[in-house]
Amino acid sequence: MAQIDLNCDFGEGFGIYELGENEILHYVTSVNIACGFHAGDPVVMRKTVQMALEKGVAIGAHPGFPDLLGFGRRHMHVTFEEAYAYVVYQIGALSAFVKAEGGRLSHVKPHGALYNMAAKDAELAEAIAQAVRDVDSSLVLYGLSGSELIRAGKRFGLRTANEVFADRTYQEDGSLTPRSHPRALITNEEDAVRQVVKMVRERCVRSLAGTDVEIVAETVCVHGDGSQAVSFAKRLVQALHGAMIEIQAIG
Amino acid sequence: MAQIDLNCDFGEGFGIYELGENEILHYVTSVNIACGFHAGDPVVMRKTVQMALEKGVAIGAHPGFPDLLGFGRRHMHVTFEEAYAYVVYQIGALSAFVKAEGGRLSHVKPHGALYNMAAKDAELAEAIAQAVRDVDSSLVLYGLSGSELIRAGKRFGLRTANEVFADRTYQEDGSLTPRSHPRALITNEEDAVRQVVKMVRERCVRSLAGTDVEIVAETVCVHGDGSQAVSFAKRLVQALHGAMIEIQAIG
Amino acid sequence: MAQIDLNCDFGEGFGIYELGENEILHYVTSVNIACGFHAGDPVVMRKTVQMALEKGVAIGAHPGFPDLLGFGRRHMHVTFEEAYAYVVYQIGALSAFVKAEGGRLSHVKPHGALYNMAAKDAELAEAIAQAVRDVDSSLVLYGLSGSELIRAGKRFGLRTANEVFADRTYQEDGSLTPRSHPRALITNEEDAVRQVVKMVRERCVRSLAGTDVEIVAETVCVHGDGSQAVSFAKRLVQALHGAMIEIQAIG
Amino acid sequence: MAQIDLNCDFGEGFGIYELGENEILHYVTSVNIACGFHAGDPVVMRKTVQMALEKGVAIGAHPGFPDLLGFGRRHMHVTFEEAYAYVVYQIGALSAFVKAEGGRLSHVKPHGALYNMAAKDAELAEAIAQAVRDVDSSLVLYGLSGSELIRAGKRFGLRTANEVFADRTYQEDGSLTPRSHPRALITNEEDAVRQVVKMVRERCVRSLAGTDVEIVAETVCVHGDGSQAVSFAKRLVQALHGAMIEIQAIG
Repeated sequence: MAQIDLNCDFGEGFGIYELGENEILHYVTSVNIACGFHAGDPVVMRKTVQMALEKGVAIGAHPGFPDLLGFGRRHMHVTFEEAYAYVVYQIGALSAFVKAEGGRLSHVKPHGALYNMAAKDAELAEAIAQAVRDVDSSLVLYGLSGSELIRAGKRFGLRTANEVFADRTYQEDGSLTPRSHPRALITNEEDAVRQVVKMVRERCVRSLAGTDVEIVAETVCVHGDGSQAVSFAKRLVQALHGAMIEIQAIG
Repeated sequence: MAQIDLNCDFGEGFGIYELGENEILHYVTSVNIACGFHAGDPVVMRKTVQMALEKGVAIGAHPGFPDLLGFGRRHMHVTFEEAYAYVVYQIGALSAFVKAEGGRLSHVKPHGALYNMAAKDAELAEAIAQAVRDVDSSLVLYGLSGSELIRAGKRFGLRTANEVFADRTYQEDGSLTPRSHPRALITNEEDAVRQVVKMVRERCVRSLAGTDVEIVAETVCVHGDGSQAVSFAKRLVQALHGAMIEIQAIG
Repeated sequence: MAQIDLNCDFGEGFGIYELGENEILHYVTSVNIACGFHAGDPVVMRKTVQMALEKGVAIGAHPGFPDLLGFGRRHMHVTFEEAYAYVVYQIGALSAFVKAEGGRLSHVKPHGALYNMAAKDAELAEAIAQAVRDVDSSLVLYGLSGSELIRAGKRFGLRTANEVFADRTYQEDGSLTPRSHPRALITNEEDAVRQVVKMVRERCVRSLAGTDVEIVAETVCVHGDGSQAVSFAKRLVQALHGAMIEIQAIG
Repeated sequence: MAQIDLNCDFGEGFGIYELGENEILHYVTSVNIACGFHAGDPVVMRKTVQMALEKGVAIGAHPGFPDLLGFGRRHMHVTFEEAYAYVVYQIGALSAFVKAEGGRLSHVKPHGALYNMAAKDAELAEAIAQAVRDVDSSLVLYGLSGSELIRAGKRFGLRTANEVFADRTYQEDGSLTPRSHPRALITNEEDAVRQVVKMVRERCVRSLAGTDVEIVAETVCVHGDGSQAVSFAKRLVQALHGAMIEIQAIG
């Protein structure tokens, strides 16, 4: 039976600020918890870990660039050593909360610009993969399907999870259509759901050019903020059930 | 044979800033490594852990208030939950570097205002002790000799290390003379060395009032910055050797 | 004709975080804009200044402690020099945006713990007042009615604005009932409105003990977040109009 | 008589951290003071402004990226609006200290990666130039000689100062040799001094290819940290005096 993991970013508040992402927890199997660099703070992290454990979803660290002001979405040119150390630090911080609450850390998914840059930059990808390996080689590394990050993870002997997107279109080479492209986003919910089902069952995606392209789909990124996000997640879960696809965490 | 641990704060640079504290590493048995809140950053932490492991000294986490601007020396009124979470976070971050380098974290010593406030504030002390216990109950909790922090550590079943100071005078109740007092500091190196030897061998300290007061001395705080610090450390080590006191880590 | 200023904290988002405080702008005559220490960032500050100028309300700087994590609400023990420099810095940063947009900065109201501590601590109050005076002696200093901050402002030759609260009870000495007291808050909107009208018209407030105490009310703090805040502000404005009290900015 | 300004970055400590750059103040005519983003804090800024005023050198704001951890040296991809707001904020903060001390702000020189990126990126350069113009159109904008930043400054009607480097080699198109090139740096002090004198007197520089290339030299960047920096500055001052070149601030 085909399987897929649904993952969602989580715990991205800071201090008094909240993003109102809690309801999505009912529809995912894995959460990626911010670790204090692009978002999250120690108090938020603890509460978020407690919520995730109570719900029984798999817990991942969600390390980002040290840029709270830019929510970790801005490209920063950091060295291999810096990227490595930032990832070790953030995994360590989150795993202490998981341990203190009696849970287990299962995966790592880089955030925002770190994720996007590591998809294409082999050296940055290696820094991240090595950091994950050095802290805990049993952690699953999440990365863009077919990306440099996935390749780096494999080179370092890590289990990896190829991530796909429901609301993004793909190009003929299997890469995401850049956001600058007018057709980069899939705004029709039914199309988005259908794309995911196809990726899981047929192991391919219909590219913008109209051709079917092979793709590995092990986990789907589900957005957590906004009422629309929740309604879409519900719909996606129903469609996956309908297609006899098992929704299950990886880690 | 009497024993004592010599500990020193370490890794308190940040970014391009350095404090020039490296030489002291030759004269101590334990180091307390800053964890990124009052000082330290991921790159600095990694290098510092590597240096400590190479030298073979015991490694401790040195959590502080989130106040880089004030170097963690300013009192901040935080809640129990905040203090708890700050300590869990920082221990976790440091321990990931220690694990990645193949070492073992042995103790935790709060920094600056967190240390001073926890010496007197039982609730804050409990937050810290509980955080240490929840992350790793084998860690030794360092605190001011006879303080609330030591008491809280014992209540939570932790091994504790009573810390004494070479260059501070003590009052009749065994507490440190406040820094505002004109005779708070011992500036004469010989007096400072003699005070430590007396504390270890006789288990008491001569108070400002001239009376001998009982004190538990399990570790001595050695300062790390400045050439004077190193020369004093050398002298202290010689005197302890001369007095047949074994200098040894605790953790 | 009696007059009162209604002021509201404003621009307290950060990065992607928003507090949803925009609607209150229609019901106040002055706004206190966060300056990047406890909240606010340069992009937010610019937009907030533009909104305030468009609406025609008086613009004030709202300096706080450098504690984004605690939203500037936590007591921090800073020196006179630190407090002075923090206030100069934040006023300068905000006034550059006001100048760039062609407006005029009219007042300064410290935020959170800085406000509360300066109400009672004469030295801290002097640091703030001196900073305001040194940057621009035409600025009006807002402070808790009858507080040390108001006194310090007067000593430094500043115009001051005595601030009162609609939803807080007062004690027989004219001070606010501490929040720890069960009757510290006025939750009934009608009572809160009546208290303000009485303070403006009769220059006194009914204390918790039931006696009337003299109080100077030049500006009322109106909360900005939440739908209840807006509905209360509307009601307050109506009641002040009904009582023939003119609502007007001070600066 | 030929003229040149010698400028130096200044006030780049933070909290307890110092860079030991004070002695250079005797050999320069202008200082660029860090504004709290890549370095500097309110207390440091105030002291630095006081030192500069006492010495009588021209004071400039030295805005950088919000990256204390990377000392503003790391490329960050920010939007036009972000860059504009960061520069307005930092100029405003520094100018408040200058005003409080009775001085006058004379120029703005972007720092590190902001400076380097703005040398080539016309849009970023415009954001900076517009920010300077909007805060105070009498400020002189310092930028790499012949760069996009200088061009943007002129488009916005600002006075500009073309900056040259003593210790960097130039290419045939007049641009700096990238630091990755083995001959990017001039390590021989006599060669460095000779290059500056030639640039000022002959308005050209000998490129790595051996040809003379036109260059506008209005200000020279002098490094401030390290004993070597001071000895080089002394030597440069002597050589300029010997060549009958007047050393004078621009603003």
